[in-house]
Amino acid sequence: MPNAITIFSPSSVSNVGPGFDILGFALDDLGDKITLTLIDGDYDIKSIGAELPSDPDQNVATVALKSLAKSCGYQGGFSIQIEKKFKPGSGLGSSASSAAGAVFAANELLELGLSKKELIPYALDGEQVASGQRHGDNIVPCMLGGFVAVKSVEPYEGFHIDTPEDLKVLIIFPDVPIKTAEARKILPQEVPLKTGIQQAADMAGLVISLMTADYELIKGCLEDHFGTPYRKRLIPFFDEVKEMAFEAGAYGFNISGSGPAMFAFFKKGDDLESLKHQIVQQYKGADIEVRFHESGINKKGCEVL
Amino acid sequence: MPNAITIFSPSSVSNVGPGFDILGFALDDLGDKITLTLIDGDYDIKSIGAELPSDPDQNVATVALKSLAKSCGYQGGFSIQIEKKFKPGSGLGSSASSAAGAVFAANELLELGLSKKELIPYALDGEQVASGQRHGDNIVPCMLGGFVAVKSVEPYEGFHIDTPEDLKVLIIFPDVPIKTAEARKILPQEVPLKTGIQQAADMAGLVISLMTADYELIKGCLEDHFGTPYRKRLIPFFDEVKEMAFEAGAYGFNISGSGPAMFAFFKKGDDLESLKHQIVQQYKGADIEVRFHESGINKKGCEVL
Repeated sequence: MPNAITIFSPSSVSNVGPGFDILGFALDDLGDKITLTLIDGDYDIKSIGAELPSDPDQNVATVALKSLAKSCGYQGGFSIQIEKKFKPGSGLGSSASSAAGAVFAANELLELGLSKKELIPYALDGEQVASGQRHGDNIVPCMLGGFVAVKSVEPYEGFHIDTPEDLKVLIIFPDVPIKTAEARKILPQEVPLKTGIQQAADMAGLVISLMTADYELIKGCLEDHFGTPYRKRLIPFFDEVKEMAFEAGAYGFNISGSGPAMFAFFKKGDDLESLKHQIVQQYKGADIEVRFHESGINKKGCEVL
Repeated sequence: MPNAITIFSPSSVSNVGPGFDILGFALDDLGDKITLTLIDGDYDIKSIGAELPSDPDQNVATVALKSLAKSCGYQGGFSIQIEKKFKPGSGLGSSASSAAGAVFAANELLELGLSKKELIPYALDGEQVASGQRHGDNIVPCMLGGFVAVKSVEPYEGFHIDTPEDLKVLIIFPDVPIKTAEARKILPQEVPLKTGIQQAADMAGLVISLMTADYELIKGCLEDHFGTPYRKRLIPFFDEVKEMAFEAGAYGFNISGSGPAMFAFFKKGDDLESLKHQIVQQYKGADIEVRFHESGINKKGCEVL
């Protein structure tokens, strides 16, 4: 048994349009690179690219590891090194990447033989520390890969949605701070029945359009009537950027997670340089830095490097 | 140009599980047989199998016809004979069958050349007289056939959902009166955000499972969190009948429209005689007559006979 392993755990987009708290997908080429080492002592955390909590009871990765260790009877410690490309609080499932990646790595290293689905509850234990919630729409796509709908997390019940092969995601990340817990507080706890019906209708349309690669329909249905109308106010220039994206031919646009990152759908091969330039100019006026990421949907989820 | 035509306009199930106000499908072998004749005078209504309003401004079929006639400039009158297999108020889209069937027949007879989709607004004008609402989840499947999701009616926007070839529908109709408008009044106008999310999650699951013929998943997702919890109280023995259906192997069960009819999914070839017998016995004790209908999903919608 080796005593160290390095894995990749992808970033993910959750709250996908009408899939508030339900739909999420994993991203290629963006996420956490985690090296986990078995040690005799306690828990040791090293973070690269972001300042993560060093208290093992506050860090999502070590909380997830502790939960798994308790369940499987592992008495030793872990040294974990987490290398982040995006900082936490971006809306790209940073805590899910760390929590899912940590338990995925531990399962491999300790040869526990648990399936990825069986690891989900431990990863949720970790993510809960950061978000105060147990939603699976980041953890599940991060762990399993692909585009998923999460019906319930305990017990885990979810389903994979086939997406068009040539779908490309553009992530737009303006560097303004948003805390998931705060973004949740501003939401009303009741919605008009009519709004609930609209959300379900767009969900039907989005699922059908993804499964049949009907891009025009995706565009019409990638709306969220529960969270976006409130949360978009926390994101400077949301409406302006959305309009730019649509003018550049986007097939849908919305907030990633609880923001500030936004995502837009395009087709592979679409040239987005001019759009990016426009967006950079928009934010420059307000002295806000903006970053981009272009990728396909990650089909693998967590993987050993 | 012939001066009379006979058409068939199918019954339909609306409010399908999480598709409250959104999802509907048409039924084979059940519906209205309508004979429409061009006459010089006004509007003349003859009904068979049910007592329908004889005032042309109160009858859904003639209101729909008037709307179409006005739009296309037809100055003459119509004599319409409507033969019903189920009585209005069953929850099987009776008014939609008459309204959609009437304008479909008129379009053929007057050779207007409108598409079925273009006829939808006139049919809605008719149905509105009965329900006070403009929902498309009966009108659209009745007109077009198949299993449809209606995103909006004005302008019409909806999408077809492919269903498993071997899907069979059992309609269970206990003969108790329910008025659509009353069934709507008992619904709260606000729902908890959590409930809205549940409905959207079940919608995602239902659409995926229908499109991939995953019967077990259909069963888990054919739930309605908006209407059924309230409306089921209007239907005697709803919970008992649901349990009997599941024990007989049903892949989902819910209210059809606003009731009292209920529907259950089975596979073609499933023998339902024993289940029907059980249900008859249940209702017999309360002196309620119960009728059944078994059919596939009607793929054609309105058609000339």
